[in-house]
Amino acid sequence: MKVKVVSRILEANDRIAEENRRRFKEAGVFVANLMGAPGAGKTTLLERTLQALKPYLRIGVIEGDIVGTDDAERIGALGAPVVQINTGGACHLDANMISEVLDELPLNELDMVIIENVGNLVCPAEFKVGEDIKMMVLSVAEGHDKPLKYPLMFQESAALVLNKIDLLPYMNTDINKMRNDSRALNPKLKIFEVSCTKGTGIDSWAQWLNGLRSR
Amino acid sequence: MKVKVVSRILEANDRIAEENRRRFKEAGVFVANLMGAPGAGKTTLLERTLQALKPYLRIGVIEGDIVGTDDAERIGALGAPVVQINTGGACHLDANMISEVLDELPLNELDMVIIENVGNLVCPAEFKVGEDIKMMVLSVAEGHDKPLKYPLMFQESAALVLNKIDLLPYMNTDINKMRNDSRALNPKLKIFEVSCTKGTGIDSWAQWLNGLRSR
Repeated sequence: MKVKVVSRILEANDRIAEENRRRFKEAGVFVANLMGAPGAGKTTLLERTLQALKPYLRIGVIEGDIVGTDDAERIGALGAPVVQINTGGACHLDANMISEVLDELPLNELDMVIIENVGNLVCPAEFKVGEDIKMMVLSVAEGHDKPLKYPLMFQESAALVLNKIDLLPYMNTDINKMRNDSRALNPKLKIFEVSCTKGTGIDSWAQWLNGLRSR
Repeated sequence: MKVKVVSRILEANDRIAEENRRRFKEAGVFVANLMGAPGAGKTTLLERTLQALKPYLRIGVIEGDIVGTDDAERIGALGAPVVQINTGGACHLDANMISEVLDELPLNELDMVIIENVGNLVCPAEFKVGEDIKMMVLSVAEGHDKPLKYPLMFQESAALVLNKIDLLPYMNTDINKMRNDSRALNPKLKIFEVSCTKGTGIDSWAQWLNGLRSR
């Protein structure tokens, strides 16, 4: 019974996600759904990405948070069009939430929309929102056991950004295990190692993302 | 409609939580529900706590994870009775999951049960499982904006363990803001600053937890 209800919710969600996708496609916008645990560094990666790609792409952002507008303010300060969704209590974005804010973005003027999901390694991976790809950020400070403990998100993502690598010298985290376990779950996963605070590795990450747009 | 369904789920959950609570009380067991984001350091804090309180308390553990038995193996290695719950895909434990494993623990031989919830800063705070208190771990590496972004968990917790303080010299995290925003959300919140890998601050944390048992 429980399973039936859940699968009906997911089916309804997928229908709306397809509608969102059609609207994005009509506007010629590439859409990435950015996921990760609280504090993995999603917003800071977004700031770095917007700065790196400013000469090449017009990027809009949809921010998902339980409450507050901090993230949208950080993104808006960089001059990017941004909409904040407050889920109230929901631990993930769904297609309907995205559908409701689409008119707030100047889609026809944009090349790419990045949707920053609510901080959570579980449910965001289950809900399509109309994206072309999912991608995730994992802080090395979260420890090397995360891929095997939260496998779905690693399986669903096209890219994994391993963030905060500047902290590696001060921790016991085995980044090789992180890489190997992630690739075992998803052999096609692109892995980038970055420090968003120091700026390390951002160039090759941004270059990859830029390349997706022109495919 | 959506709200009605959710509130009915929570009501059913609360009824089962009360039954769990009665069973714990009959056995004279104090129960703490330990929450936090993925990688905050919940299991490492548990290991440290079990070691520190071994002379004083018989503690049993219920481990909640999406998949896998890594955490239960780590706890079992310390000689504590432990049960692993795999939620499949659910991002939090609920009262029914706890109810189903209660017979696996020797409740009458225990003073305390610590339930390690699934790594998630959102939904675990909404679901009672039969605990006396909720408590949470937040890694300083998650950044100082977390209390205001995930307020419910801070409001529901009796104690906040700020973990990984050994990393503070290498980061931009403002621990004063973490403390102040947490206390603004919950003036009664007990705050402990620890490094589970280095062992810093564990004694006063363990002493506080031990003190709860005898209340």
